[in-house]
Amino acid sequence: MSDSGNFHSSRRKAVDRIRAHNVLPDPEALAAALRTGDRAALSRAITLAESTHPDHRAISNAVIHALMPHTGNAIRIGITGVPGVGKSTFIEAFGVMLAEQGHRIAVLAIDPSSPFTGGSILGDKTRMEKLSVHPNVFIRPTPSSLTPGGVARHTRESIMLCEAAGCDIVLVETVGVGQGEIAVHGMTDFFLLLMLAGAGDQLQGIKRGIMELCDGMLITKADGDNVAASQRAQGDYMSALHLFPPRESGWVPRVIATSAAEHKGIDEAWQMITDHSKWMKERGLFEAQRRQQDVQWFTDSVQGMLFDLLAQDKAWMDAKKKLESEVHAGSRNPFDAADELIQLVRARLH
Amino acid sequence: MSDSGNFHSSRRKAVDRIRAHNVLPDPEALAAALRTGDRAALSRAITLAESTHPDHRAISNAVIHALMPHTGNAIRIGITGVPGVGKSTFIEAFGVMLAEQGHRIAVLAIDPSSPFTGGSILGDKTRMEKLSVHPNVFIRPTPSSLTPGGVARHTRESIMLCEAAGCDIVLVETVGVGQGEIAVHGMTDFFLLLMLAGAGDQLQGIKRGIMELCDGMLITKADGDNVAASQRAQGDYMSALHLFPPRESGWVPRVIATSAAEHKGIDEAWQMITDHSKWMKERGLFEAQRRQQDVQWFTDSVQGMLFDLLAQDKAWMDAKKKLESEVHAGSRNPFDAADELIQLVRARLH
Repeated sequence: MSDSGNFHSSRRKAVDRIRAHNVLPDPEALAAALRTGDRAALSRAITLAESTHPDHRAISNAVIHALMPHTGNAIRIGITGVPGVGKSTFIEAFGVMLAEQGHRIAVLAIDPSSPFTGGSILGDKTRMEKLSVHPNVFIRPTPSSLTPGGVARHTRESIMLCEAAGCDIVLVETVGVGQGEIAVHGMTDFFLLLMLAGAGDQLQGIKRGIMELCDGMLITKADGDNVAASQRAQGDYMSALHLFPPRESGWVPRVIATSAAEHKGIDEAWQMITDHSKWMKERGLFEAQRRQQDVQWFTDSVQGMLFDLLAQDKAWMDAKKKLESEVHAGSRNPFDAADELIQLVRARLH
Repeated sequence: MSDSGNFHSSRRKAVDRIRAHNVLPDPEALAAALRTGDRAALSRAITLAESTHPDHRAISNAVIHALMPHTGNAIRIGITGVPGVGKSTFIEAFGVMLAEQGHRIAVLAIDPSSPFTGGSILGDKTRMEKLSVHPNVFIRPTPSSLTPGGVARHTRESIMLCEAAGCDIVLVETVGVGQGEIAVHGMTDFFLLLMLAGAGDQLQGIKRGIMELCDGMLITKADGDNVAASQRAQGDYMSALHLFPPRESGWVPRVIATSAAEHKGIDEAWQMITDHSKWMKERGLFEAQRRQQDVQWFTDSVQGMLFDLLAQDKAWMDAKKKLESEVHAGSRNPFDAADELIQLVRARLH
């Protein structure tokens, strides 16, 4: 992607305007700049998509609407594993390999950052040294913030924006167990689980549930003293995967021993992902899965947009603020206050 | 709590009716039965609170409304740590100790179960052998399901229901990193982090973010060969906690080495929690924190109730189903479909 492409001068002006962060961008100009692959425009559009401010949301909705026809063309890969398993190291090796082959890559890292200090839990991204400076690569940490539904929504929108900007591979990195991973599984074509050989299974958590979700598994750090343990782990996980009922698609997840340090298994991982896409496409399942995900996206979007709508409604916002301060003062219980606000909407719906 | 208390015969009839799960209960009768401490009524009320069915939600809202005056009297303790750290084992030892002292205890375990097979990720609760059969104890796993916002909502409601049923200590167990823990922190008075000595810090994940949230930390399995490592870990974590800016409340989190096997540090953990409550109450901060949490609860409830309201609106549901099937068929993009549904609400709001 280009930091300064071959723009017409009008486009360049639009980009300059967008780069001045204190001015709200024109959605069409922003969409046009993003389509040229301009990083600043992509960054700005994602920032707007992450915002909860009604004005930002309105612009973001317009941008995404304009870009919809240009989305959907990347392969979307979810990557998960416990902290310390080597996600960043793998993504560095994997991403650089693909970028060198000419692919254009986006890395979206969902980062459950601290709600208090804003500190990152995933840790800094400086480990992706080569990847982060590669001209074909766009890396973006996404704070998961305090609203659980928000993660799914703005990550999905970020994926679309990256696709519209010309990325053909989107990696969505997540950490930990439960909600986040299920959300990422619900918006990607291939869900990749990274596991460490030798670490206790329990400490690696959530094996059963996430193993069931994954389309493939990598054993990381299969180098040096760790080779024998990695081979054992590979066998163990392959057996474990066979204990699950076969997938409807007929796809059998593979387990690959990898080493980012020795660049081992990295190309094999990509082979697995492209084989999976081929398998799914031949059976019409790739599209079917995307459609299924679209329905979920529709539902999530409705929720978000409903609150955007109400946030612009003065009567609603006034009543909400009044009730909120009563709850805060302890003169109202939250449940009844919520009920009163809902009755207000009910009365106004005709 | 009683499985069959000293009810008046009319109450017994109500309870019998509630126990027949195919009949929707009368909210007042269910609330009254729950107030006597009847387990079946409490279970039923929680099941209704977890339901997304409009009829169930309506009953649940009525039950919670009726019980509001009887809630808020427990100390609410959030407990977190990676899988394998020994949460169940600690809760077993901690809960039995408190139950033996006459406390009435609820354990709500938020379980990020598999969306596909319904399989549990936390693992079975059979490790809580003594606790699960203790007459003073009510244990309830809560599936986190697929709707992230739902967890916060129904867990909060479950806490209130347990309090109305007479529990004076509510333990909310969660696993992993990020959203779940932040949600649980936002609904409890004391947030307890369990850590394992010796395991790599990175594998235990989320240290920084969650350490910042916690009011106290336990080193688990501080027994046998693990004693020396536990003492080192205790010192390390105490130093680490001092690196954070001091809390506004002035409370200094403690780090306690515990062993469930040797019943070491378990009473000290309880002492820490009661000291914290006293500290907060003396400064008016206990109530202040609850009020703050109430505001969050209000906001979450509004979201939930708004969808309950719309789910009962035929025009909305018809339009939603039609658009959903168009999205599923691929003839509509999800974003525009959501927008159309929102425009429908906008047009109807007067």
